[in-house]
Amino acid sequence: MRFVFMTLFPDMCRAVCETSIIGRAVKKGAVSVCYYDIRDYTVSRQKRVDDAPFGGGRGMLMQAQPIDDCFNAVCADLGRRPHLIFMSPRGRVFTQERAKELAKKDDVAFLCGHYEGVDQRIIDKLVDEEISVGDYVVTGGELPALTVCDAVARMCPGVLRDEEAVTLESHWDGVLEYPQYTQPAVYGGVAVPEILLSGDHAAIAKYRRREALKATLERRPDLLRTAELSFEDVQTLISLRREMQQDEPAE
Amino acid sequence: MRFVFMTLFPDMCRAVCETSIIGRAVKKGAVSVCYYDIRDYTVSRQKRVDDAPFGGGRGMLMQAQPIDDCFNAVCADLGRRPHLIFMSPRGRVFTQERAKELAKKDDVAFLCGHYEGVDQRIIDKLVDEEISVGDYVVTGGELPALTVCDAVARMCPGVLRDEEAVTLESHWDGVLEYPQYTQPAVYGGVAVPEILLSGDHAAIAKYRRREALKATLERRPDLLRTAELSFEDVQTLISLRREMQQDEPAE
Repeated sequence: MRFVFMTLFPDMCRAVCETSIIGRAVKKGAVSVCYYDIRDYTVSRQKRVDDAPFGGGRGMLMQAQPIDDCFNAVCADLGRRPHLIFMSPRGRVFTQERAKELAKKDDVAFLCGHYEGVDQRIIDKLVDEEISVGDYVVTGGELPALTVCDAVARMCPGVLRDEEAVTLESHWDGVLEYPQYTQPAVYGGVAVPEILLSGDHAAIAKYRRREALKATLERRPDLLRTAELSFEDVQTLISLRREMQQDEPAE
Repeated sequence: MRFVFMTLFPDMCRAVCETSIIGRAVKKGAVSVCYYDIRDYTVSRQKRVDDAPFGGGRGMLMQAQPIDDCFNAVCADLGRRPHLIFMSPRGRVFTQERAKELAKKDDVAFLCGHYEGVDQRIIDKLVDEEISVGDYVVTGGELPALTVCDAVARMCPGVLRDEEAVTLESHWDGVLEYPQYTQPAVYGGVAVPEILLSGDHAAIAKYRRREALKATLERRPDLLRTAELSFEDVQTLISLRREMQQDEPAE
């Protein structure tokens, strides 16, 4: 799978990709990444890429022309048109489900906006999908694009050291992860839960599932609406709910 | 305001901070950032910071001791205990509202996990708050921490070039941003909306608010439950809703 970053800050994107799981995946040949500096494509003699918004207002907007020509160069270099994602708080909120779907594509390009935004006409013309990483405002599309790239790259075959690791992590089946413990068995006077030292794999699996469901019920009950739950999970949730109600102070 | 990154990848955090709004804010003296390499604090002679999980399972967990000692060093260097955030999919989902609140703190430290996770005992012992940037899994806490840092830094006085810019952006008052346009007035045969060239500021403001509400209604109606809406906004929404219903195909 190939990732393309169209950005005004290619060095920053490169620095992150090279030190992260994406860099490791590139070395293994599992994915490839290329970086396009939008500023290289402006026809302005002063190398301008932005201008003031029509209708007034603060800040500067990225202009259509450099982005248009940059994307043409990307398409020409790839020999085909990649799926173009614009990172924007106006987009659909990114989820693990969407990461899985994007991992099936051959090429994904990210248009990283900066300044106050991007001329709407170029979004309407080129962009296949607008993605938001969450309900907060960051300065540019780079961190959001790198985040999506990391989440998608992990879903590509051959990227993770151990394909199965992924199935144990939060949000894969829609519930939060159980708490984990490693050496030493006692740290700062606190011992790991005894069951983890028992060697009884079935009991450990059951304990962990219960802890995962408990964390989800306590912290993110909204996730339970869409989580993949077995009949046993539902029984566990009913008993956890009962315990939580008993712990609540009586009126 | 001071930000502290506790990470196994300080160079990556530094590379991002130095090229972003955070770097500009540091130069202006509006914020300061420091980086601690957790690996520097391990007592292991092999410089180990991770081990296998108790109870079995794939992947490696970060151990308590290096994190504990790293945080002690942070506290000693600062002369006080910073608010410690652990970036985790198990955390509370980050929002613009939370960014505003965090911007009021003097010091915020980020514990960036890696590998399969972090020993729960050190989270229980040190961490003030767990934050998730969204319902997806990334490889480490660095990108999420940098994202939170960017969003919070923008809310600190003196960071943005124009303090007012912030009030116009998405999620500040809970609705999406209106579409924006810049030079040239016609690009690729597409003209900017005529009203933006009218010079009638009141009409432009009204048009923009309507477009913002329209985008929110179409893309993220869930946001309208908590958005700050005027009586006029509600009237606009009712008329937009009516238009959308008329556009829907009849049964």
